[in-house]
Amino acid sequence: MTLALDNAAQDLLFREAHTAHAFTDEPVSDEQIRAIHDLVKYGPTAFNQSPLRITLVRSPEARERLVRQLSEGNRAKTAAAPLTAVLSVDLDFHERLPELAPHAPNLKDAFFSELSVREAAGSFNAAIQIGYFIVGVRAAGLAAGPMTGFDAEGINKEFFGDGRQKVLAVVNIGKPGPDAYRPRAPRLAYEDVVTTV
Amino acid sequence: MTLALDNAAQDLLFREAHTAHAFTDEPVSDEQIRAIHDLVKYGPTAFNQSPLRITLVRSPEARERLVRQLSEGNRAKTAAAPLTAVLSVDLDFHERLPELAPHAPNLKDAFFSELSVREAAGSFNAAIQIGYFIVGVRAAGLAAGPMTGFDAEGINKEFFGDGRQKVLAVVNIGKPGPDAYRPRAPRLAYEDVVTTV
Repeated sequence: MTLALDNAAQDLLFREAHTAHAFTDEPVSDEQIRAIHDLVKYGPTAFNQSPLRITLVRSPEARERLVRQLSEGNRAKTAAAPLTAVLSVDLDFHERLPELAPHAPNLKDAFFSELSVREAAGSFNAAIQIGYFIVGVRAAGLAAGPMTGFDAEGINKEFFGDGRQKVLAVVNIGKPGPDAYRPRAPRLAYEDVVTTV
Repeated sequence: MTLALDNAAQDLLFREAHTAHAFTDEPVSDEQIRAIHDLVKYGPTAFNQSPLRITLVRSPEARERLVRQLSEGNRAKTAAAPLTAVLSVDLDFHERLPELAPHAPNLKDAFFSELSVREAAGSFNAAIQIGYFIVGVRAAGLAAGPMTGFDAEGINKEFFGDGRQKVLAVVNIGKPGPDAYRPRAPRLAYEDVVTTV
């Protein structure tokens, strides 16, 4: 069974792509991140709520503050990565809904007035967008090194002091360096994942 | 700024792809879903935990049980879709970790013995996989109609009676029919999403 997507694109995005743990020194520019955003912004979210926010950690001072909040095994590779992005959910994403979902003008107040509802829906939809973002990094010819090993409260305090955003993942981005990849780990078989009723 | 991904693939997966609300009668085969799985299974998750499960709702009886749990606006289009998939998190995903993460043999017991930890990590990583899955449906030349408007407890009772799985999203899948698409809603600008520190 062939897919509509050509083989080179399948390889670039999934089959040959790996999580990278080491990168070359080649910088990652704002223009590259802009091109990724301009592609993956079209990925669907519920009511087009688009709650994912991206914080590019570029200054040495900010990188130091971030690295301190990572688990031991994630520190050295992040300190050495050309770019690291903190991916977070905007808990006030509903403020933009009148623009983002013009077909449902009452959504903001009718569905999302409660912070707890926004946090659940926003975190879920932002996680879906993290999937698109990782695909987008690869679409740019770069490798992604997503991590969840960190002190979330510590990152939130350091980077989102006003409480409006909450970190969901941290992603190193760059060209893969020597020994960037671990061996491909096994994947679940179709029969393990898919059931028909 | 150009991406490494070719324009046709960009269009297929993101730029020209839309959430579909109506489909042709053309069936979606198990082979097509198998090809999608065989592509997107490579998308990364934390510790390769791969918690997403897919239930293909094919029998008229199962479809009826599903449609009853959907919000009013999602019923008719789902009843008429060639295929509907219930996407869920496997709360016992950790049982497969010894195979999936052979580099971290103690993970299953050290990190994931608590159900509440598995539910949080599993739901987050399964949501990332939903992003990959939607991209995969499009990679197969099909349109996806993801929905979150349903009675989650009702679906869990109907389809996951043993409590091991929890529904996260329901996705209609097929070739887009006439009037399948709403007009493209606006997206957030780069400056609204990306901050540099």
